Amino acid sequence: MLRTHTCGELRTSNIGANVTLSGWVQKSRDLGGMTFIDLRDRYGITQLVFNMDTNADLCNEARKLGREFVIQAIGKVAERSNKNKNIPTGDIEIIMDSVQVLNPSKLPPFTIENETDGGEELRMKYRYLDLRRNPLKENMLLRHRMAIETRKYFDEIGFIEIETPYLIKSTPEGARDFVVPSRMNEGEFYALPQSPQTFKQLLMVAGYDKYYQLVKCFRDEDLRADRQPEFTQIDCEMSFVDQEDVLNTFEGLAKHLFKVIKNVEVDDFPRMPYDEAMKYYGSDKPDLRFEMKFVELNELAKGKGFMVFDSAELLVGINAEGCADYSRKQLDALTDFVRRPQVGAKGLVYVKYNEDGSFKSSVDKFFDQAALKTWADAFNAKPGDLLLILAGDVAPTRFALSSLRLEMGDRLEIKDPNVFKPLWVVDFPLLEWNDDSQRYHAMHHPFTSPKLEDVTILDSDPGKVRANAYDLVINGVEIGGGSIRIHNREMQKKMFQILGFTDEEAQSQFGFLMNAFEFGAPPHGGVAFGFDRWVALFGGQESIREVIAFPKNNAGRDVMIDSPSVISKDQLDELKLSIKK
Amino acid sequence: MLRTHTCGELRTSNIGANVTLSGWVQKSRDLGGMTFIDLRDRYGITQLVFNMDTNADLCNEARKLGREFVIQAIGKVAERSNKNKNIPTGDIEIIMDSVQVLNPSKLPPFTIENETDGGEELRMKYRYLDLRRNPLKENMLLRHRMAIETRKYFDEIGFIEIETPYLIKSTPEGARDFVVPSRMNEGEFYALPQSPQTFKQLLMVAGYDKYYQLVKCFRDEDLRADRQPEFTQIDCEMSFVDQEDVLNTFEGLAKHLFKVIKNVEVDDFPRMPYDEAMKYYGSDKPDLRFEMKFVELNELAKGKGFMVFDSAELLVGINAEGCADYSRKQLDALTDFVRRPQVGAKGLVYVKYNEDGSFKSSVDKFFDQAALKTWADAFNAKPGDLLLILAGDVAPTRFALSSLRLEMGDRLEIKDPNVFKPLWVVDFPLLEWNDDSQRYHAMHHPFTSPKLEDVTILDSDPGKVRANAYDLVINGVEIGGGSIRIHNREMQKKMFQILGFTDEEAQSQFGFLMNAFEFGAPPHGGVAFGFDRWVALFGGQESIREVIAFPKNNAGRDVMIDSPSVISKDQLDELKLSIKK
Repeated sequence: MLRTHTCGELRTSNIGANVTLSGWVQKSRDLGGMTFIDLRDRYGITQLVFNMDTNADLCNEARKLGREFVIQAIGKVAERSNKNKNIPTGDIEIIMDSVQVLNPSKLPPFTIENETDGGEELRMKYRYLDLRRNPLKENMLLRHRMAIETRKYFDEIGFIEIETPYLIKSTPEGARDFVVPSRMNEGEFYALPQSPQTFKQLLMVAGYDKYYQLVKCFRDEDLRADRQPEFTQIDCEMSFVDQEDVLNTFEGLAKHLFKVIKNVEVDDFPRMPYDEAMKYYGSDKPDLRFEMKFVELNELAKGKGFMVFDSAELLVGINAEGCADYSRKQLDALTDFVRRPQVGAKGLVYVKYNEDGSFKSSVDKFFDQAALKTWADAFNAKPGDLLLILAGDVAPTRFALSSLRLEMGDRLEIKDPNVFKPLWVVDFPLLEWNDDSQRYHAMHHPFTSPKLEDVTILDSDPGKVRANAYDLVINGVEIGGGSIRIHNREMQKKMFQILGFTDEEAQSQFGFLMNAFEFGAPPHGGVAFGFDRWVALFGGQESIREVIAFPKNNAGRDVMIDSPSVISKDQLDELKLSIKK
Repeated sequence: MLRTHTCGELRTSNIGANVTLSGWVQKSRDLGGMTFIDLRDRYGITQLVFNMDTNADLCNEARKLGREFVIQAIGKVAERSNKNKNIPTGDIEIIMDSVQVLNPSKLPPFTIENETDGGEELRMKYRYLDLRRNPLKENMLLRHRMAIETRKYFDEIGFIEIETPYLIKSTPEGARDFVVPSRMNEGEFYALPQSPQTFKQLLMVAGYDKYYQLVKCFRDEDLRADRQPEFTQIDCEMSFVDQEDVLNTFEGLAKHLFKVIKNVEVDDFPRMPYDEAMKYYGSDKPDLRFEMKFVELNELAKGKGFMVFDSAELLVGINAEGCADYSRKQLDALTDFVRRPQVGAKGLVYVKYNEDGSFKSSVDKFFDQAALKTWADAFNAKPGDLLLILAGDVAPTRFALSSLRLEMGDRLEIKDPNVFKPLWVVDFPLLEWNDDSQRYHAMHHPFTSPKLEDVTILDSDPGKVRANAYDLVINGVEIGGGSIRIHNREMQKKMFQILGFTDEEAQSQFGFLMNAFEFGAPPHGGVAFGFDRWVALFGGQESIREVIAFPKNNAGRDVMIDSPSVISKDQLDELKLSIKK
């Protein structure tokens, strides 16, 4: 070993010991007679001391050590006169006997500090330098710890991790696949898995009744801040269970992680039906750290001669408590917010419930004080509150109000990052109508089972059928979801029919699974969690890039290694491929 | 839960309890008045009893349950009169109250028994049925346990698991890459990693001084029994270490796995230089469960007028103890063995050391009894032994004799599957000459460092340069290997020059790594173990397919899901690809 200790472990109990440390020069201070170097490694920082009086040569050498040089430092542990209470090694320093440069360093393109001066693109290009910074290092350590604890939880309750293949088969349902040309099978392609869904179901057919896997998945989608072409999933499946068994098992995982990682004891997670989430929060992933529930005003405010309201499917609002004193400018900002294309409302109606009990609204022409009072009562509003109301078709209006609700949560600073409010959203619709393809699509995926009591309306009213499907939501972030699966060939065949597959297409794409259902498939269900998102949530990060060692940028490029890249003509020829100009 | 207990847990202490079991019908016996069903799940088998006298309807229902039906069985635990000592639940049975078919099963295409009548291809097609069999189930459980224990070992000594990307960059050195066309970057490709080599080195540059990962790797090679296009690696890297630190750390992992998985305490692993392994065993992965070391006879047997010997670079043999009584037929079989194309020898010379002290050999015309006695002495042979000698060029002769040595080990049954003999083979050559490309290739990979004392001959005699490279070998199986890496830009550049890269090629392919070496790269080294092989070794399996849940066949196909497959014209168009006819 090129070290006897790390840079994070020496304490006053080590005083007098001869030690060898190896690490990076964090910074260097030359005070004339003395030179101090902060030596850094993964474990911490230790101060090295070079004395001009006792060893001028060594001190001169030390003065030449630049930032990020890798050195091996040999010396004796001494007590510091000027103790640094901010770091665990702050009580000691090392009086240097010798130092060896293991590797010099050019000046880094940005500072390796908690707050860096490097821009996004530069830090991506030199990711190996960015990863030296404490915030990213903490994220990597958190990710490791969460993976270890996830496996520990599952192992202790009898789940086994089974690796499913990465070179699988392209299927048309769902997002776009990444494909991999096969050299040995000319003109044919593998696909990288969007999830191990069918394989984990086959493992249930094979009798492995408690399966999990931390596994990479791949989707060739256009990217956003919280999307990456490759991402990691905690993938799970169980047999001989009903929905409550599944929820309880994975709620147990979440509670375990809350406890060991965040040191938080959380209550049992509430279950909220999808319809309720949509009605009261306008979202299937409500942030429950704050209330601000939707209140619908159709009964109170329609048919009173205000055309905007009268022509709307839905009138719905929220109560921004204590905001009656918002200025014109603030209200205009909220109107601008809801009118942004990504929010999509046409306008915003406000009602100020003044401290004196009077009302001031943007619809005073149409509604008198008494009418506005009935609204305020519907919201349980108090003097000082501000009602914000949208009108329009149901789905877009709910969506826009949900965005406004979250925006108000930010403005009012009531989204406490240290509070965690998990819940299960349950009873999702099985299907959703797609206008482009003029057919139903599976809301989760085609393997989700309908609720038994809704099977009778599968043909007559497919859009109304509820699924045995559920999502885990924490603080408005969808951590994962799952369902009780279909395990019956006929039902699976029916589902493919509803989704517009011909029998031939269903058989050629998913025949292996439907065949498997004929050989004793047990009832089963499971869940898949987005591991990157979960780590990001626990690490207080907005983007999953911050918790991935080597992420890609929004164009799907790894700018560090400069990939993707062209490949040689020989490679293309071997694969029998050519690139269209 | 559709069960209160598993089929493996009920004991006499449960007698009288009302229980619900769910599982598969393993077999059914109809004894007239009574029907017995063996119900199976992952945990074991429990006997269900149906009585015609007490419940005729239920008994008649039970008689209709075919093999592999999935049922839910409710009843009361009772003591068995006729106990089965072969299974843990053999003291009890369940007197049935009711039974429900959860899913029927068609007759499986092969029997779900420890020994099955299913052929390889059929079992691959119905892998989900094959996985129900105990031998495969045990392999999956072993794999899970080894993965858990590997992570436990690393976690306890401060290693962190960091996920490296799967969509990386194609590089020409090494085996053939699988590539992935990029839709967002037209005409460009990602490659799937053959190993995370460069990324783990960048993690060392980033200061994560103890890294590991259980990770899928991909190689587009023609397949053999122990090769798969995707395989799993235990990938590791450490900083601030020399070779002995690395060997000791990972020897610790191996000892941990031997202890917790195989319940075996193994001695410290011997270190054997590559040259010695080749000289005495003709292989860089010698099986040390038996001795049978090579003895060279050049001094004793060349220049005596036997042309075959005189023209050979190397005369070398082994002593098959106690085999002097081999018949003509047996000796002919050995000659046929060494002449097989995959062994490649031209012929085999034998010397029988008869019990009476006389010698009988296939070269009696050229060598008298006294001469043969000097050979026998060189082998430390006793009366009753058989010397087997090959002649020819050094490398092919050693290879052929190594094959013969292993064959004799099998014939003599001295390769005890319950004995484990690990060793480190060290001091590998840095380079090997390739006649096809007329240049040196890296024996491990281009990032392996030369031994410091051999750097001076890098230009003058590159083939003689030894590397800081090592392999872990157990019972003749290469479990893994690694090296101390180059961490200096100039040395890395030099290595690429020796391997025939232009500076431009080196920079375009590996510039990111060489650039990283300029920003304070620490000395580092590591190892990668073939996880599939290790599991196969511990599970007593010849082929890694037996320890992979969903393997591919020798044509790289998954015959269960029928992949690879053609993709749609739309997919090809989106990727700007066309297939050459």
